[in-house]
Amino acid sequence: MEHISFPPLSRVAICGGTHGNEMTGVYVVREMKKKKVDKVGCVSVMTVLSNPEAVKVCRRYMETDLNRCFPDALLSAPLTASSPHEMKRAHELNALLGPKGSPQAVNLLCDIHNTTANMGICFIFYRFDWIALHLFKYVQSKTSFGPVRAIQFDTPLSEAYSLESVAKHGFALEVGPQPTGVVRADIYNMVTETLDLIMEWLEQFNSGSVFEGGEVEAFRKTQSLDYPRDPTTDEITAAIHPQLQDNDFKLLRAGDPIFWPFTGEAVKYEGEEAYPFFVNECAYYEKKVAFHLARKISISLPSISVKKN
Amino acid sequence: MEHISFPPLSRVAICGGTHGNEMTGVYVVREMKKKKVDKVGCVSVMTVLSNPEAVKVCRRYMETDLNRCFPDALLSAPLTASSPHEMKRAHELNALLGPKGSPQAVNLLCDIHNTTANMGICFIFYRFDWIALHLFKYVQSKTSFGPVRAIQFDTPLSEAYSLESVAKHGFALEVGPQPTGVVRADIYNMVTETLDLIMEWLEQFNSGSVFEGGEVEAFRKTQSLDYPRDPTTDEITAAIHPQLQDNDFKLLRAGDPIFWPFTGEAVKYEGEEAYPFFVNECAYYEKKVAFHLARKISISLPSISVKKN
Repeated sequence: MEHISFPPLSRVAICGGTHGNEMTGVYVVREMKKKKVDKVGCVSVMTVLSNPEAVKVCRRYMETDLNRCFPDALLSAPLTASSPHEMKRAHELNALLGPKGSPQAVNLLCDIHNTTANMGICFIFYRFDWIALHLFKYVQSKTSFGPVRAIQFDTPLSEAYSLESVAKHGFALEVGPQPTGVVRADIYNMVTETLDLIMEWLEQFNSGSVFEGGEVEAFRKTQSLDYPRDPTTDEITAAIHPQLQDNDFKLLRAGDPIFWPFTGEAVKYEGEEAYPFFVNECAYYEKKVAFHLARKISISLPSISVKKN
Repeated sequence: MEHISFPPLSRVAICGGTHGNEMTGVYVVREMKKKKVDKVGCVSVMTVLSNPEAVKVCRRYMETDLNRCFPDALLSAPLTASSPHEMKRAHELNALLGPKGSPQAVNLLCDIHNTTANMGICFIFYRFDWIALHLFKYVQSKTSFGPVRAIQFDTPLSEAYSLESVAKHGFALEVGPQPTGVVRADIYNMVTETLDLIMEWLEQFNSGSVFEGGEVEAFRKTQSLDYPRDPTTDEITAAIHPQLQDNDFKLLRAGDPIFWPFTGEAVKYEGEEAYPFFVNECAYYEKKVAFHLARKISISLPSISVKKN
């Protein structure tokens, strides 16, 4: 079986508050800063509150979604005085944690997010990243809490729009359900336990452990469905159906009800069998996404270890 | 037993979007407007989207909390160009639905709210209002869903700060848990079923039915507790304890854990036995309220009927 060796993962960034009203990351990063966590074993750790202005007012963003500001085209475009607050901040973060695609970029970036969807804890990848996938596999096998899932968005690195794309390796940690503006102890605990496992894995990796390959299961996004809307006003005319609500990752079959109109009959699903996720995520109303659909894939991981000098 | 007769309840207002990110009321009011609901039986019904600007941007408010703008002192103070958006809107709503304390005020106002707390459906009163309490009793006895509770805030009418105080009779319908920015079908259904029962009761009342008195149980607010905070930064240093989270209205006893610090030992409750509610409501972080406490009271309702001309 294939074996790949990687340089040591010596610089790690833990980010929160990329969306200013997703509170787990905000509190986790604040607590790490208070405890002055800057080194775990031989790994140097940066803790970053990504969008402090948005955190201050407890909003997702001030002018534009920061977590859509990191495609190459946007990072290379010059800033002007009228550039949105988040675009300016994206350039700062790219300088601090990247630059994206450069040898100076941090080795690993974990960006903590919350969702109002009942998704448990998910690792979101925008590419096949053996380091991140091995980390996912390790966490999945070790946690004390419910299912840990991997989600893959098929986006080339140059177009990857989220913060973690500035690092050499990275993923978003998406955890829910948690309302925006709220911190729940159960969700907070799941995230800190996950971070501890990540640090444990990094220490083992850097000290020469070989991580065996194997199969992991992931959900690859295939499409998004919008809410039914009034063609004139664009207003939503149906809620997520109670049979779909809170049932992220439960197989959806043709004929299953998906929308519950305020007036009239339930709307049924018509496509191929698929797994819904981000069901009724509050921030996606404006993005015209009621939920995403995925198919399950199996990914063969190579065994990996650190490259000896 | 005491009997009280009241003039017919001929003008009713159903309001939503007083907080622009509490979506049940926004959607209920929109749907009623689309269906051009303006009369149910002999009752004239006004449907009001209270804060359309805040609804547009899906925020609780633009400049200040609209649902704190209705004390007499604020309503009688002259507006200036620099008055907050919500204060201007409060004057408009007072002219439309009140004026507060005047004979022109609507007979009944129901203002629909959501909470992130696990409170089910609650009628909130700021005074003993026999009409509203009889409505509560009727809804409680007839709904198909879980518990319906009454909450009483002991505030004189002149100081009552919420929208429903401009009407002759009124209450807030508080329903949760629902994240802000999200509409859930289950919560929506609970509210529309409640509104149907309210309309049913009003029709019976106006057509001469006598509603017998009796005892109802209510939760009277006694105090509020804030989150533990860092004395220097004022930042929250503890989440609601998992044993309290989602356990609104479950009796709290001295020694029960209430806060779960990010570092250190659980904080225990020290006061008299009480019932917590609005536990971990997102909008109350800024109001420095982690939860309210109540004691249970029993209210003896008089029998009531419409005053015959």
